[in-house]
Amino acid sequence: MEKTVQMYEGKAKKVYATNDENYCIVSYKDDATAFNGLKKGTILGKGAINNRVTNHLMKLLEKSGIPTHFVEELSDRETVVKKVTIVPLEVIVRNIAAGSLAKRLGLAEGTKMKSTVLEYCYKDDELGDPMINEYHILAMEFATKEEIDLIAKYSFKINDVLSHYLKDANIELIDFKLEFGKTADGQIVLADEISPDTCRFWDTVTGEKLDKDRFRRDLGHVEDAYQEVLKRLMGE
Amino acid sequence: MEKTVQMYEGKAKKVYATNDENYCIVSYKDDATAFNGLKKGTILGKGAINNRVTNHLMKLLEKSGIPTHFVEELSDRETVVKKVTIVPLEVIVRNIAAGSLAKRLGLAEGTKMKSTVLEYCYKDDELGDPMINEYHILAMEFATKEEIDLIAKYSFKINDVLSHYLKDANIELIDFKLEFGKTADGQIVLADEISPDTCRFWDTVTGEKLDKDRFRRDLGHVEDAYQEVLKRLMGE
Ligand SMILES: Nc1ncnc2c1ncn2[C@@H]1O[C@H](COP(=O)(O)OP(=O)(O)O)[C@@H](O)[C@H]1O
Ligand SMILES: Nc1ncnc2c1ncn2[C@@H]1O[C@H](COP(=O)(O)OP(=O)(O)O)[C@@H](O)[C@H]1O
Ligand SMILES: [Mg+2]
Ligand SMILES: [Mg+2]
Repeated sequence: MEKTVQMYEGKAKKVYATNDENYCIVSYKDDATAFNGLKKGTILGKGAINNRVTNHLMKLLEKSGIPTHFVEELSDRETVVKKVTIVPLEVIVRNIAAGSLAKRLGLAEGTKMKSTVLEYCYKDDELGDPMINEYHILAMEFATKEEIDLIAKYSFKINDVLSHYLKDANIELIDFKLEFGKTADGQIVLADEISPDTCRFWDTVTGEKLDKDRFRRDLGHVEDAYQEVLKRLMGE
Repeated sequence: MEKTVQMYEGKAKKVYATNDENYCIVSYKDDATAFNGLKKGTILGKGAINNRVTNHLMKLLEKSGIPTHFVEELSDRETVVKKVTIVPLEVIVRNIAAGSLAKRLGLAEGTKMKSTVLEYCYKDDELGDPMINEYHILAMEFATKEEIDLIAKYSFKINDVLSHYLKDANIELIDFKLEFGKTADGQIVLADEISPDTCRFWDTVTGEKLDKDRFRRDLGHVEDAYQEVLKRLMGE
């Protein structure tokens, strides 16, 4: 498969068209942003780590019955994926209160939720990715009822599979963000990435943060944390 | 029924205990607040109007099968209601985009929604009544799944009944806020008020605002608007 034109450059990845219209190639960057683009920086080696971690986890999820966009890893930073129309939602899954949820509800970070919380944000940088609910999704026609139900079902299943898998690597899955897309033939698949950029990973024993919060909150050892996740998941 | 001690003074009403522990007496004030209490003022005659409009609409809803807290109007400003434990949610029903929804989704005020939107806010002044969804409600145990389903069902029904009723008075029901409570025997009933303080009412022909937005946005003729609603609904 050959890259042709660049379709899109996002904050963390570039997306290229290929000679096959059903596929595209994503190329992961070392660029890091936070607070809706207000904070900018670089995390050396992040692109390669996020590419490999994402593909590793997507393969695991495929085996557990979750359809994903993953096709083939091409290199350190580049992967062939099914081209999809992204459902304009960030689906956030939360097991433990942290970040915006802790603030919104006045909970201490680290509070275990009595049940898993799903949140939907409308993926729109200009509006600041506002939180919405299922009624907004239907009224705005971002997705149909059937699509939302499937996305919610997949999200809970992904949470189950990943939480258990990560626990064996001494990583607690606090929360994470998913994006789903629709293939040319109308199938809903997991798209985008699953990485320390898009998840909160805490060491199960020490509580140490192994994710992008080290960058957001200037905690230091940012690169080390990404490396550590790669090592725990893929032994290198 | 006799008022005994004041149980609570809110921004728009006082609530008194009575000699019967299953009932309380609400007393409507002329005080007006907006933007989570940042803006304060007085709307002359508002208390009496909101008391009468609320009771009028609650009686209409009871006839349509919605259980409410309404018991008996005592005077211009005072009404006996069933004492309930308020479910700590503001339930917002939206037919047309306005206010915070228009802002959140980048819609022009007045945009008709393709389907009715329900929103839940956690009723907590200190947190600024943050918007939450059903998953938060369950995880925080603000209500059970059965209670949420019933509250949603009632809210849609109330929207239907009121929209039709108000249209005959040349009032378009844009959006409104509801509160529900639980009686001593565990029944979910509509509580609080339904008034120009808690609804957006637009004249169906001119689009003129007949609600608290006149106060929030300094549009003038605030008292006139409240009077006009009373007149259209109760002929006086
Ligand atoms: N399989 C796919 N097909 C098409 N677009 C995708 C696919 N997977 C992810 N994308 C999109 O690629 C874009 C690039 O990713 P990213 O740099 O994270 O962008 P953003 O700055 O929007 O977060 C995102 O808009 C994402 O939704
Ligand atoms: N039937 C009822 N029993 C007990 N409390 C009620 C009932 N109906 C409404 N309330 C509560 O009475 C309080 C007074 O009303 P209001 O002045 O509007 O208060 P607030 O400033 O909290 O909005 C509110 O907290 C409301 O939830
Ligand atoms: Mg992204
Ligand atoms: Mg109130």
